[in-house]
Amino acid sequence: MQLNAPLDMHLHLRDGEMLHNIAHASATTFSGGLIMPNLVPPIQTKEAVIAYKNRILDAIGNEDFTPYMTLFFLPTYDKAFLSSMKAYITAIKLYPAGITTNSEGGVSGFDVETLRPTLEAMSQLDIPLCIHGETNGFVMDREAEFATIYERLATAFPKLKIIMEHITTKTSVALLDAYDNLYATITLHHLLITLDDVAGGMLQPHLFCKPIAKRPEDREALLKVALEAHPKVMFGSDSAPHPKDAKEACGCAAGVFTAPIALQVLTALFEKHHALNNLQAFVSTNAQNIYGITPIPKIVTLEKKNFTVPQTYNGVVPMYAGETLSYSIQGVSS
Amino acid sequence: MQLNAPLDMHLHLRDGEMLHNIAHASATTFSGGLIMPNLVPPIQTKEAVIAYKNRILDAIGNEDFTPYMTLFFLPTYDKAFLSSMKAYITAIKLYPAGITTNSEGGVSGFDVETLRPTLEAMSQLDIPLCIHGETNGFVMDREAEFATIYERLATAFPKLKIIMEHITTKTSVALLDAYDNLYATITLHHLLITLDDVAGGMLQPHLFCKPIAKRPEDREALLKVALEAHPKVMFGSDSAPHPKDAKEACGCAAGVFTAPIALQVLTALFEKHHALNNLQAFVSTNAQNIYGITPIPKIVTLEKKNFTVPQTYNGVVPMYAGETLSYSIQGVSS
Repeated sequence: MQLNAPLDMHLHLRDGEMLHNIAHASATTFSGGLIMPNLVPPIQTKEAVIAYKNRILDAIGNEDFTPYMTLFFLPTYDKAFLSSMKAYITAIKLYPAGITTNSEGGVSGFDVETLRPTLEAMSQLDIPLCIHGETNGFVMDREAEFATIYERLATAFPKLKIIMEHITTKTSVALLDAYDNLYATITLHHLLITLDDVAGGMLQPHLFCKPIAKRPEDREALLKVALEAHPKVMFGSDSAPHPKDAKEACGCAAGVFTAPIALQVLTALFEKHHALNNLQAFVSTNAQNIYGITPIPKIVTLEKKNFTVPQTYNGVVPMYAGETLSYSIQGVSS
Repeated sequence: MQLNAPLDMHLHLRDGEMLHNIAHASATTFSGGLIMPNLVPPIQTKEAVIAYKNRILDAIGNEDFTPYMTLFFLPTYDKAFLSSMKAYITAIKLYPAGITTNSEGGVSGFDVETLRPTLEAMSQLDIPLCIHGETNGFVMDREAEFATIYERLATAFPKLKIIMEHITTKTSVALLDAYDNLYATITLHHLLITLDDVAGGMLQPHLFCKPIAKRPEDREALLKVALEAHPKVMFGSDSAPHPKDAKEACGCAAGVFTAPIALQVLTALFEKHHALNNLQAFVSTNAQNIYGITPIPKIVTLEKKNFTVPQTYNGVVPMYAGETLSYSIQGVSS
């Protein structure tokens, strides 16, 4: 089984020591990833984008990997600024205020007229808008409640590419076919788990993420469009490392670390559902078409051979830690 | 504010060192409690009931507190056995197999004819049946799915008092008025929290319990019947201590420890909702009527005075640890 230029279109590489600890896990097997800008402070200037990209490239070292950079959305970005940024970024990421890790400076309220100048400019400049689509409502309803905001924005800015990030519900899946300009990323873990896996037995902090895993019928809807490689969906791991101590502490942070095992598990999952022929589109080709990007060539060869996942990767507990996967990575070539 | 003979009709006192560490928290302020039998091994014989009751009385020391004992349900209990047990127990607790802590020996399948001999005998002997009503379905649906089993049993054994334990859903609340012989206990924490409090922000293991806290509309339904002291509902804390380490570990156990703060928080809650006049019924009189018990006299006086909850009680983290409550216990007299 070979994958050509896998892309992870929703990736948290963090910064500082954590960046150095985990960047390699993505860079060895992916050709590139869309890098989330929710650092402290968030990435909101050209200087910050360039400096963060350089820190990522430094952490990656000799690996061939493209960090596709994003800006943290502000409704104050004007067309001149955005025009000057176009060469440096692939997308802009919008966070509702306070909805997840380091999102305090995000958007409060989604008044179309307030957002219009920035979103019109992005539309004209063909800069995609990535959205973490959750309200601050009840945890199981947050994403479904956000659907009306997706619809409002999709209607108000019909030429703006809007990517519904890490979708977790059948409600979001249904929007894909209802609006030409809505797209989505889907994580690995949301194809595999429901709330049952997080809180149905013992409480499992390493599977706790935002958006939280939803109901079985939601997972089925996600699986369907992923397995068929619906042309408007892309793989985006939302791989979000936290130190082991922080994940296992009382009041643990949200995030599942999947970067080192994503391709192996996706291959096993697509094989199980007789959909291996669609995996290339899901993990690369669809993203190339949606974003208009041409990734670094990288051939990843996977073979059906047991692989036991380490308990930690440089202090971060990955999904399936200590478990044995049925596929392993045999080699990577350019 | 005075409460006369408060009763906690669903209480886990555990055994051994934990029993000695936490029994006092209930015994100082409650007149009695219905003691759950899910020890290892479960309480299933007269000898086990007597021995466990003696261990509880030993742990309680000089406090006036009645442990109302229960047996762990088995479909093999016959009328002669049950008749011989009647003087020693207040109820029998039924667990579906594997549904919660130490419930592996519970009931699999709820075939009325299989259960008929035991349940008919209990009905004739007027021994109430307490049920942990959850299926092994999706975590948010388990209790609502169990409703059909409650209905089947209530219909098949119309003279059997069936107590739906620690109900968490509007579905269970609706059953109270639909079946004469269905009753319920409600915990403190399910009157206060929803899944949002467990997993809406950071993950909160100390609020993780089974049944898991549900949706806002479920909590509203529970609050309504508690505040009006619906005659078929009783307070049952389901106070379920685990050592701090076990609660904060990866893969933490289910259970909220509320015994030491239950009366203070209930008083504040009922006051907030202008229902203080109904608190006596909710925490004692209803249970006396339903179970036909006459508790030890005990007057608990609460006053509106700040009380800061300790971080731990003998190694167990209580609900609201470190927070300040608006009511405190001024005194207890017989």
